[in-house]
Amino acid sequence: MSTQFQGVIPPVITPRHTDGRIDTTSLKNVTQHLLDGGVTGLFVLGSSGEVPYMTNEERELVVTTVADANAGAVPLIVGANEQTTNRVIEEAKKVIDLGADAIVVTSMYYAIGNVQETDTHFRSIHAAVDKPIFAYDVPVRTHFKLPADLLARLGRDGVITGVKDSSGDDVSFRQLLLAAKDIPDFDIFTGHEVVVDGALLGGAQGVVPGLGNVDPAGYRRLYDAAQAGDWTTAAAEQDRLADLFEIVYTPKGRVSGGAAGLGAFKTALQLMGVIESNTMSAPMPSLNPEETEAIRAILKRNGLV
Amino acid sequence: MSTQFQGVIPPVITPRHTDGRIDTTSLKNVTQHLLDGGVTGLFVLGSSGEVPYMTNEERELVVTTVADANAGAVPLIVGANEQTTNRVIEEAKKVIDLGADAIVVTSMYYAIGNVQETDTHFRSIHAAVDKPIFAYDVPVRTHFKLPADLLARLGRDGVITGVKDSSGDDVSFRQLLLAAKDIPDFDIFTGHEVVVDGALLGGAQGVVPGLGNVDPAGYRRLYDAAQAGDWTTAAAEQDRLADLFEIVYTPKGRVSGGAAGLGAFKTALQLMGVIESNTMSAPMPSLNPEETEAIRAILKRNGLV
Amino acid sequence: MSTQFQGVIPPVITPRHTDGRIDTTSLKNVTQHLLDGGVTGLFVLGSSGEVPYMTNEERELVVTTVADANAGAVPLIVGANEQTTNRVIEEAKKVIDLGADAIVVTSMYYAIGNVQETDTHFRSIHAAVDKPIFAYDVPVRTHFKLPADLLARLGRDGVITGVKDSSGDDVSFRQLLLAAKDIPDFDIFTGHEVVVDGALLGGAQGVVPGLGNVDPAGYRRLYDAAQAGDWTTAAAEQDRLADLFEIVYTPKGRVSGGAAGLGAFKTALQLMGVIESNTMSAPMPSLNPEETEAIRAILKRNGLV
Amino acid sequence: MSTQFQGVIPPVITPRHTDGRIDTTSLKNVTQHLLDGGVTGLFVLGSSGEVPYMTNEERELVVTTVADANAGAVPLIVGANEQTTNRVIEEAKKVIDLGADAIVVTSMYYAIGNVQETDTHFRSIHAAVDKPIFAYDVPVRTHFKLPADLLARLGRDGVITGVKDSSGDDVSFRQLLLAAKDIPDFDIFTGHEVVVDGALLGGAQGVVPGLGNVDPAGYRRLYDAAQAGDWTTAAAEQDRLADLFEIVYTPKGRVSGGAAGLGAFKTALQLMGVIESNTMSAPMPSLNPEETEAIRAILKRNGLV
Repeated sequence: MSTQFQGVIPPVITPRHTDGRIDTTSLKNVTQHLLDGGVTGLFVLGSSGEVPYMTNEERELVVTTVADANAGAVPLIVGANEQTTNRVIEEAKKVIDLGADAIVVTSMYYAIGNVQETDTHFRSIHAAVDKPIFAYDVPVRTHFKLPADLLARLGRDGVITGVKDSSGDDVSFRQLLLAAKDIPDFDIFTGHEVVVDGALLGGAQGVVPGLGNVDPAGYRRLYDAAQAGDWTTAAAEQDRLADLFEIVYTPKGRVSGGAAGLGAFKTALQLMGVIESNTMSAPMPSLNPEETEAIRAILKRNGLV
Repeated sequence: MSTQFQGVIPPVITPRHTDGRIDTTSLKNVTQHLLDGGVTGLFVLGSSGEVPYMTNEERELVVTTVADANAGAVPLIVGANEQTTNRVIEEAKKVIDLGADAIVVTSMYYAIGNVQETDTHFRSIHAAVDKPIFAYDVPVRTHFKLPADLLARLGRDGVITGVKDSSGDDVSFRQLLLAAKDIPDFDIFTGHEVVVDGALLGGAQGVVPGLGNVDPAGYRRLYDAAQAGDWTTAAAEQDRLADLFEIVYTPKGRVSGGAAGLGAFKTALQLMGVIESNTMSAPMPSLNPEETEAIRAILKRNGLV
Repeated sequence: MSTQFQGVIPPVITPRHTDGRIDTTSLKNVTQHLLDGGVTGLFVLGSSGEVPYMTNEERELVVTTVADANAGAVPLIVGANEQTTNRVIEEAKKVIDLGADAIVVTSMYYAIGNVQETDTHFRSIHAAVDKPIFAYDVPVRTHFKLPADLLARLGRDGVITGVKDSSGDDVSFRQLLLAAKDIPDFDIFTGHEVVVDGALLGGAQGVVPGLGNVDPAGYRRLYDAAQAGDWTTAAAEQDRLADLFEIVYTPKGRVSGGAAGLGAFKTALQLMGVIESNTMSAPMPSLNPEETEAIRAILKRNGLV
Repeated sequence: MSTQFQGVIPPVITPRHTDGRIDTTSLKNVTQHLLDGGVTGLFVLGSSGEVPYMTNEERELVVTTVADANAGAVPLIVGANEQTTNRVIEEAKKVIDLGADAIVVTSMYYAIGNVQETDTHFRSIHAAVDKPIFAYDVPVRTHFKLPADLLARLGRDGVITGVKDSSGDDVSFRQLLLAAKDIPDFDIFTGHEVVVDGALLGGAQGVVPGLGNVDPAGYRRLYDAAQAGDWTTAAAEQDRLADLFEIVYTPKGRVSGGAAGLGAFKTALQLMGVIESNTMSAPMPSLNPEETEAIRAILKRNGLV
């Protein structure tokens, strides 16, 4: 149990048909591609899964589809993405009914809270649901940084079972790792694709890499090298993945930051034959042929096409 | 028709019982209090109405209750508050079915968009619903400032019928007023309680003041003075209302900014006998007795208790 | 004495020859242009004067040149622009020796302070110099918003004699006007070119408009109309000036925000024959011929060329 | 030559007597303490040296004092801290005359620039001075993030010889390391005290740790372990130093962030008998006895008193 949520747990992207409908066949293919790559868990309805753009019906379809394709192979972690406490609780109950082994919860957004309200937020959700909760620290979206001492306190009190950190604040991340060192079965993941070796060296339990959709095996090799104490190999693998990550910069400002990153992952998977189309959720535009070719070149030099 | 959405349109607060349930009796009282004060419209499910904190069921109850109490007296504008395009469309259809005469829509949030996606966002919603749309510019919540030229373009193309500006950017607000001057039936409201005289002097069509819950008649007097060209009276009334607005600062950092402002409005209405309790939506704490007494003193010196 | 610092006090731009040297002849012309336009004071070494870009020698030359050209006609307010307390004090003593009637001081920058340190900052400077001090609130440059209650307290204690507000926070500005209402001889200026009518309606004592370099007479008419209580005329003049302000947007992102605004003022003055060249301080590029033509068109429709 | 600027190069703190004057005896003691600890260079007039708070005369005294105490033992890197290009050039010439082996330059501040102006800024300074230039990326002070591709381009063109990164953006840092991999004699330092092991694993050439004033030997051990490929030891030493870094949080909000961090370093050195007083530059308050005791406890558990 204590190692249930460790290792490489990519946030699964959500393929769509060119007409915008969820493409469940491609979604199953992605799931299989990830399992084949050696991932140790699946994170569904995350930002990389375009969860903010899905209707409630679509969210249900996505969780069900991945749960089916996974068939219990690895733990299924699902985002309960809503603005505030009571809305999160309703969402959490839904995704748990659909098969989530754990849920992922952010601080409130659109709402303007503070530390005390955020503490109450997580405790109320914990009291209302019976699955482990990961706190997701993503201030670029929520505009609220989860303080390391709040996270450690919530962990120590059994309110949360771990943290997915996409805060971009590596100082605070290291301090969280130190503060949480003695909390049993507390798992801290970095969400930043290009600094995983350092995060693992500092004691992180795993990584939730959007880029892991494209190269799950690379992240697994990096994780295994780190576990084996072979940091030179880990750093070399990380450098290779950091080069691969250049795919997200190919749109060079033509589309929003959201559409650029997720669009690049989808375009890469399309080029690799895993999914049918690189269509984005409305209102995001898809990457164009020129950007697609730039991505193909980066995949090629990294041996992925 | 061209003057349907002008004047004083407060964002209606949402009273709760001490156990957290929506207090429909108090909500009807607030509605009547506003109509008695001479408001020219009602804005339901706004930030001041704590919309981010309500479940879907609660949102429905609130719209229905206010629609009943209003009984067609003034236009009913309702927030369709969701993260992204397709989710907004679903929400908009719901509130239109419940009686909304117009809807209020923000740019996307949690999602990270740009100008082009925001343009598509509003156009897609306009294509999907058959009621007027107000763009709500509230970057402190969405973290995206709606550019004045985008708003003017959407207005000119008939996509939006007006703007509620809570951007805190008075330079951009004035430029929007100028840019939209020749758009027929385009209504621009300021959401900032203490600068309404200047906004009206610059050509704004009205105000959506959270503080208008407490003193609707004061805002109506301010608006009427401005309409009559009596700017000295308008400024004096504005100064009085700016003093009344001090109620939102009574918590002095004890609670979040959200809980402080909305808590102050509720506490004032409780002291004035309009609502039963100043209970806030979870996870926000309610204002305490000390803060309540500070608010009472401010109400007193402004002749409201 | 009590009205010494009121009305229209433009931040004087600093012309340069094409080789980058300060153009003192053009600087004298600008000064005369401003006096002819009816300004009630001159603000030298402000942001619009490109003070951050000048060497110490250049700063001295500019103050001396404007002081000579002004010859005591109107009060001379001079920026003492430095990072921290003791550096400001040294700079303040220099500019006072050169003829400043009052100095303008920001909160610290590059340094990371807080309210208490900022309070000490202003009090220490006041104790060390014997001329009136204006606090300059410009968070877009200092990244610290001067709180209204701090400013009112410093005013009440005689530490500062007024405020130049370029905060972009009109709510806080109105609250400052109210909080400072009973402080004798305390003068509050807005630095925002397009909302002067509303600021004066709210009780401001004047305006420090960068655009006033281009059209000082327009701002004087606006101020006079407001003083006469003729708010309709004031608002109409403001609308005209807001249209003129469009010159600052002509570069459309080609240059930095700093170079765009100041470059537009210089280019306009060059087109109007007041200065010789629109050369900017290094490393800012000057506006190009295409941008110059766009500015000429705006000047033309406003009757300035 | 190629390894001249590598390893552990602390930003030397600046001791003051209780009356505020620079304490040159203590400053010599700090220098000796650092050399004894095995540092490979000294960085004078950095943020940790309180450079923004010093008068020009004080800056000169500090450089001279450290240069004397160092007596050529290790390279002397000196901050040329000014707002804009021409002011930096004047400052750079001064500190080079005083003995700087290299200078450290930030992007412009208070001034509002962009990438193109920043490029010109560094190239103009390089053209005007004949010592190596380190770009100092410190957006928390300058409010401008130096883009990794700009830094790599400036390095490739021989404009800068390296980077001190205090950006807090570890993703961009790793991308800079990769982009600069093939630039000969280009040295990249992290300024973040608690993530040095990861930075070195990623390929950084060294560290500029404020905390290195307190425990230079600890950082040297960490660096040596990393050089030897003994990452387990490096990470353990880093964890110990991260615990020691807790001294900067002892003021718990009582003073500004600047005063807290620098005050903690000074207080620690005072407790360790290296400097006479923990007096801060005006207007910063010094840490109080209670905070001093909290720091003593942290030093004790880390074996430093």
